[in-house]
Amino acid sequence: MPTTERTPVTVLGLGNMGAKLAHTLLKAGYPVTVWNRSPDKAGPLVAAGAHQATTVEEAVTASPLLITCLLDHDSVHHVLDPVAGHLRGRTLVELTTSAPEGARELSTWAEGHGVAGFLDGGIMATPDMIPGPHAFILYSGSERSYRAYESTLAAIATPHFIGADPGIAALYDLALLNGMYGMFGGLLQALALVDSEGVDLEEFASELLLPWMRGVIASFPESARQAAHGDYGGTGSTLAMQASASGMAGVAEDLGVNGELMRPIDELMRRRVADGHGDDDFMSVFELVRHPDRRIAG
Amino acid sequence: MPTTERTPVTVLGLGNMGAKLAHTLLKAGYPVTVWNRSPDKAGPLVAAGAHQATTVEEAVTASPLLITCLLDHDSVHHVLDPVAGHLRGRTLVELTTSAPEGARELSTWAEGHGVAGFLDGGIMATPDMIPGPHAFILYSGSERSYRAYESTLAAIATPHFIGADPGIAALYDLALLNGMYGMFGGLLQALALVDSEGVDLEEFASELLLPWMRGVIASFPESARQAAHGDYGGTGSTLAMQASASGMAGVAEDLGVNGELMRPIDELMRRRVADGHGDDDFMSVFELVRHPDRRIAG
Repeated sequence: MPTTERTPVTVLGLGNMGAKLAHTLLKAGYPVTVWNRSPDKAGPLVAAGAHQATTVEEAVTASPLLITCLLDHDSVHHVLDPVAGHLRGRTLVELTTSAPEGARELSTWAEGHGVAGFLDGGIMATPDMIPGPHAFILYSGSERSYRAYESTLAAIATPHFIGADPGIAALYDLALLNGMYGMFGGLLQALALVDSEGVDLEEFASELLLPWMRGVIASFPESARQAAHGDYGGTGSTLAMQASASGMAGVAEDLGVNGELMRPIDELMRRRVADGHGDDDFMSVFELVRHPDRRIAG
Repeated sequence: MPTTERTPVTVLGLGNMGAKLAHTLLKAGYPVTVWNRSPDKAGPLVAAGAHQATTVEEAVTASPLLITCLLDHDSVHHVLDPVAGHLRGRTLVELTTSAPEGARELSTWAEGHGVAGFLDGGIMATPDMIPGPHAFILYSGSERSYRAYESTLAAIATPHFIGADPGIAALYDLALLNGMYGMFGGLLQALALVDSEGVDLEEFASELLLPWMRGVIASFPESARQAAHGDYGGTGSTLAMQASASGMAGVAEDLGVNGELMRPIDELMRRRVADGHGDDDFMSVFELVRHPDRRIAG
């Protein structure tokens, strides 16, 4: 598609992420209109060829495709409510981080105002990863809108359509971020332990922790299978063996390191053993984490 | 080396791991003597060709290479103290999970009784991974003993010699396990979130979580560099942006899921922002985890 035919896009919200989205679309040849509450944030984008709208109404009416990347769910309403009458026939792609219920509420609200389609997206990247091979965005909501604008969305980051429920991308986004922060918790604790005796952190991370964690990750599909079926036997390493008396937090504190990151997992293992599941595999603690209505085993 | 020349090995302690070590050495052609407090655990090993010692003294005097895989540090002393006079000239490889200080104490004790060499090992595998391409064991202590028995140790799992300090393998072991449990904490939380709405856990883990976590892990060496130098700027995703008001634990609880696994990391981010480091990258929270004497930034 030649540049001149590229869909005009409006980006509302020019924080680190919104500004990066707008820059990326400009570089890909899209006509881009931008708006931000503090107008000075638009300077570098105007220099790069963006049109700066002075009002939200001007921004919304400039393009058939609207992308919001604001602070939170409330700020989306705060910005769009006054211009709801101008949404009819336009496609709204909501990239503000939100909870699944917030995305569903916005979808209903936007459809009530006659949008051509609503998509909620979860950006799985930091701004410096966009555009790039590891950045992806999960979308859910109107599949018709997703197909219509897939090439535009692909200019930002690899798009994945998850499903028609507008809340499901936010749920997946949340789950992946929680997985990441859990892993970073493990990284912080591992580094703090070896750091306590002056070990070279970069060498330790590159040569031991990285390959070790890669190996552990390979077990995720099997762990997920156990969780899906409540089937917690078979690896030969029981919870009772893994839940030591002092726990990981206690061992860290004995070494003068903050142990608080490991306290919940210590506690979950101890609690599950106390509940009579000491012979189960580690993943048995999942029953203490999952929604009570979804519990399978014990 | 023909089988007949393989070093006789004694394995003390036949829990899941000790029994697997003894079986693996037998299959590799080593003459193996075994001992366990409850003698009935030895049955399958005797059937596979092991010699069962009826006393610890008989077990220790049967081989020049002794491997202990007992419950904890105290049980090593409980088993070996009465036969300390028979350790002279033998090599002691201690694979019981222990703290760095415990390994150092045992090394000094064993050297006081004239061992040819002491090695403490941290087994980075579950029993079902042994022997196998992903199982490895970290050793520290006598490098001379390590070199002398490297081929024997390699029959169990890939051996890595870390250093002469007998406590360092235990420290690395501890750090890698903490990294793993942190990552599993992230896995549990991620699965519980999507599970709350009935998402297919196996598909989610294989198609999204696994590739996502692989991508995140690739950042570990850079994160370790930041921690090593107290240099927490540059990724464009600030702590203030990441530390949301409700926190990940609160969002999970809103979805009816146990949020306790994410509470410490929520707290560390909030505390670091409150301390004036909101513009730092995430890894800035490392300063709140590491040993107080090792703090660099704030």
